[in-house]
Amino acid sequence: MRASKLFFRTFKEAPAEADIISHQLLERGGYIRRLGRGIYSYTPLMVRVFKKILEIVREELDRAGAQEISLPFLHPAHFWKESGRWDDFISEKLLYTVEDREGHAYCLAPTHEEVVVSLVTNWATSYKQFPFNLYQIGNKFRDEIRPRFGLMRGKEFLMKDGYSFSRNPEEMDQQYAIMSEAYSAIFRRLGLDFVIVEAHGGKIGKGKSEEFQVVADVGEDAVMVCGEYAANVEATKSVPPSYPFEKALKSKERVATPGTTTIEELAAFLKVEGALILKTLVYKLIYADREEYVAVGIRGDRQINELKVGEKFGAVETVLATEDEVKRLTGASFGFVGPLDSKLRFYADHSAELMTNFVCAHNEDDVHFIHVNWDQDLPKPEFDDFLLAEEGDRCPHIPGGTYHVQRGIEVGHIFNIGTKYTEKLGAEYQDENGKMQPIWMGTYGIGIGRTAAACIEQTHDEKGIIWPKAIAPFRIMITPATTKDPVLFEMAEKLYEVLSPFEPLFDDREERLGFKLKDSDLIGIPFKLIVGKSFTNEGKVEIESRQGEKHLISPDEIQIWANDHLNW
Amino acid sequence: MRASKLFFRTFKEAPAEADIISHQLLERGGYIRRLGRGIYSYTPLMVRVFKKILEIVREELDRAGAQEISLPFLHPAHFWKESGRWDDFISEKLLYTVEDREGHAYCLAPTHEEVVVSLVTNWATSYKQFPFNLYQIGNKFRDEIRPRFGLMRGKEFLMKDGYSFSRNPEEMDQQYAIMSEAYSAIFRRLGLDFVIVEAHGGKIGKGKSEEFQVVADVGEDAVMVCGEYAANVEATKSVPPSYPFEKALKSKERVATPGTTTIEELAAFLKVEGALILKTLVYKLIYADREEYVAVGIRGDRQINELKVGEKFGAVETVLATEDEVKRLTGASFGFVGPLDSKLRFYADHSAELMTNFVCAHNEDDVHFIHVNWDQDLPKPEFDDFLLAEEGDRCPHIPGGTYHVQRGIEVGHIFNIGTKYTEKLGAEYQDENGKMQPIWMGTYGIGIGRTAAACIEQTHDEKGIIWPKAIAPFRIMITPATTKDPVLFEMAEKLYEVLSPFEPLFDDREERLGFKLKDSDLIGIPFKLIVGKSFTNEGKVEIESRQGEKHLISPDEIQIWANDHLNW
Repeated sequence: MRASKLFFRTFKEAPAEADIISHQLLERGGYIRRLGRGIYSYTPLMVRVFKKILEIVREELDRAGAQEISLPFLHPAHFWKESGRWDDFISEKLLYTVEDREGHAYCLAPTHEEVVVSLVTNWATSYKQFPFNLYQIGNKFRDEIRPRFGLMRGKEFLMKDGYSFSRNPEEMDQQYAIMSEAYSAIFRRLGLDFVIVEAHGGKIGKGKSEEFQVVADVGEDAVMVCGEYAANVEATKSVPPSYPFEKALKSKERVATPGTTTIEELAAFLKVEGALILKTLVYKLIYADREEYVAVGIRGDRQINELKVGEKFGAVETVLATEDEVKRLTGASFGFVGPLDSKLRFYADHSAELMTNFVCAHNEDDVHFIHVNWDQDLPKPEFDDFLLAEEGDRCPHIPGGTYHVQRGIEVGHIFNIGTKYTEKLGAEYQDENGKMQPIWMGTYGIGIGRTAAACIEQTHDEKGIIWPKAIAPFRIMITPATTKDPVLFEMAEKLYEVLSPFEPLFDDREERLGFKLKDSDLIGIPFKLIVGKSFTNEGKVEIESRQGEKHLISPDEIQIWANDHLNW
Repeated sequence: MRASKLFFRTFKEAPAEADIISHQLLERGGYIRRLGRGIYSYTPLMVRVFKKILEIVREELDRAGAQEISLPFLHPAHFWKESGRWDDFISEKLLYTVEDREGHAYCLAPTHEEVVVSLVTNWATSYKQFPFNLYQIGNKFRDEIRPRFGLMRGKEFLMKDGYSFSRNPEEMDQQYAIMSEAYSAIFRRLGLDFVIVEAHGGKIGKGKSEEFQVVADVGEDAVMVCGEYAANVEATKSVPPSYPFEKALKSKERVATPGTTTIEELAAFLKVEGALILKTLVYKLIYADREEYVAVGIRGDRQINELKVGEKFGAVETVLATEDEVKRLTGASFGFVGPLDSKLRFYADHSAELMTNFVCAHNEDDVHFIHVNWDQDLPKPEFDDFLLAEEGDRCPHIPGGTYHVQRGIEVGHIFNIGTKYTEKLGAEYQDENGKMQPIWMGTYGIGIGRTAAACIEQTHDEKGIIWPKAIAPFRIMITPATTKDPVLFEMAEKLYEVLSPFEPLFDDREERLGFKLKDSDLIGIPFKLIVGKSFTNEGKVEIESRQGEKHLISPDEIQIWANDHLNW
């Protein structure tokens, strides 16, 4: 490709809204152009990179036996109502909805579980047809409340999504393992430093679920890592560092604690550590048909993991109760709700189990009790895991290990969703004995734009992008030191022809050499070839890698050099 | 690929709504599955065919110097309001509109002129950057009033759309010619029997425009063909066969013609031929800021081409006036409107120019005049071309030639849209003298799904699809005559491995041979290889082409045969 013909433009400055380096460099390098909030047009450079990523994705998925399909973006609402997700997504305002001229409702696909099940239903009906795995590549639409970070979180974004269909849990596990392998192979080929983390299913459903997280400071996700094991913070099981609670039990005492509405204020007022306070929060559990409230206690220096609360009680959604609700239910204001004389069902995190002589509220404003003890002053509640993991917590999976926190960019997600969707949408198969059975389903996704952005977050420098070789839009940039010297220009053009099998960019623009080198480094081309002074003086051309290694080479040797260095 | 692993299913019957053969065979062969009205999921078989079509499309476009981009489907409304098309599309209800959580309006892309201009604006600013040509491949959304014929006319459909940007009309013409060549190359490679027809621009704008029409009886478009020349019926200029009008002029006479509201009734009542009647129709011309009415006359045996009327008067939209409007404006009912004593501006088609002693109305119900003559009885109006072409009309482009009508499927459209969009959206470049100039734009489209369907319409038989070789999903189907004979099965499997470079489908399913052969023919695989009796008896396998030519071949020779016959 000749740069004079390539539709591209580079910029010295990124737009003010570009907060992270990948967004800045994609904008500065002219890879993307903003059309609207969280919506981008992709230029020829970006499409070249996407094609290379997608070639790797397709190769690995095809190798793993998956088959490519293509599903519509316009989904008739009834599929989403049958699965039960219509109201769910609508209530979060994540769904774009559309009406056609006859008034029928559709949504713009944020994901395709319902629609792929509709493709399979009554088509895959015999046990002989299983297992199989279908995938597609296309845009997804989510009305994000806070689209940001360029390709990291958009309202419209490019994804590969895939779905496996199996006869039983064992076959489902095999499909899951095959996809896990394929995903690892894909991210390895992209040169990404990633971890596979145990994940919390969130909205899609329960069941085994793992995320492929690229380690990066700007990652939106907190990943808890302990040796080989890693988990999404929401999914992490952990044990907090122990606290030296007193063995000798004291008698409880009532203390006036005016205006101490936070743990910090209360601890300061009583001159005790937070770990000595039993903190209590009230949650509203929202079900399809009702709402309930529950109080949950935890050691005062720790936080509650809301998702664990929701999971424990099987709620569709879990939110903190408002102060009005708390007042109505307990008679107390925020900060003075506790297990003593509670009218609410009370549960506590394991971290509270060993507490002795602790501080807690008894649902009366401006009052706490100190030296409270389980059994002695109040019955032991049901203890369970409600803990939000933190750096330094002990990891139950690795003896003696503790967690440290890394920031991660979620580039892939694999998920055993069991029979949740197939049962609701009526997808069954006939087994060897002629009996109808539910189909087991896995769902697998890779954010393609996010993967490209993650590559940039991992490898860049002050000059620009350093693409992994496999996905650079061009392998080498070739330019004469000046376009005004016809000898240099002709040699550069000749080398461009020699190197044509290696995706060269011939920068034939009438621009200064420095300008061209900067453009090449900014957009991240792995090599630069300059035909300049060394050619005039000693008949050699200069080759420089993106990392700055330079050497001179005779044009006669360029073919051999290319075979060695550009053959990926 | 092994058939036992391929996600597909064939059907004996097509759904009742499938009216045309391509729709029936795509459904029966399991290429598509209906998700909603005019919305289809594409199975692995369909995706294989699309990929092959798209590979040809990309090769030819890249060769022509076009560059692939990717534009969003969600378009902020303001771009469409700036171009002036928002209201236009909304009034026809063709546009799907969406609101985001903040209440901003978007449409789902029915086409991308506005958005590609937004990508180019302020990026391509120097004359040095021109010309260039961008294309993309993706879905389009149109809320069709009558989606039908499977992939022919959908609410969501796969298209390649491209846009060229040039400095001036001459460069624009060059780009247009390059694309015309590329499109011809694409459709030739797909083995399609197509004609390039002069087209009427319709909604997109004025300017040179041609359609690539595949000749097929089920085509929705009427194409007027005369030798090498062809035109869309709306765009055809033609001369009707002459009529022997009398030379001697008679005197006009008033005649009572009660209840003769159609030309047929009037002609029967007066016992004259339709060609002797001057037919007059009243049109409402709709402009952005006003509405006007105009009366148009034509020889009574011919029809008026509404688009030509709209073009003549530069109206945004042109519709027949209602009977109420006609009554209010002329005082007469339908059938009795004419140029005599007309209160409306009156124009006539060239076909009326030579009429003598003709019949016409004078805006009084139940009355006509006969023996009317131009000049003698009423001033000559302005004559222009308002004629709807018909079979047998003379073609002005080919001396002595007459048109015949063919039905066509529009698979491609190329269009010089000049500066219409770039001026409205402010896309300019700086010329050699530093002066800002408007950018000239061409727009080019290929319906990918429709192209696949057109291939089927052109080549199929009672057994099923006969794909052009270049786009068949598999090149050869291989099967043992029975899966129960391990010798036959193993040989078939071995040949499947030998032929692996040639996209074979190994039908390893435990089904009867006849069933497998039917499936292979239905989905349109060019060759079948059967390992059966001939192998047992004489060590030879049977090869049969999709057209039915059979021959026996020794397994040793299969590699040579494949090199000769499957290497496309």
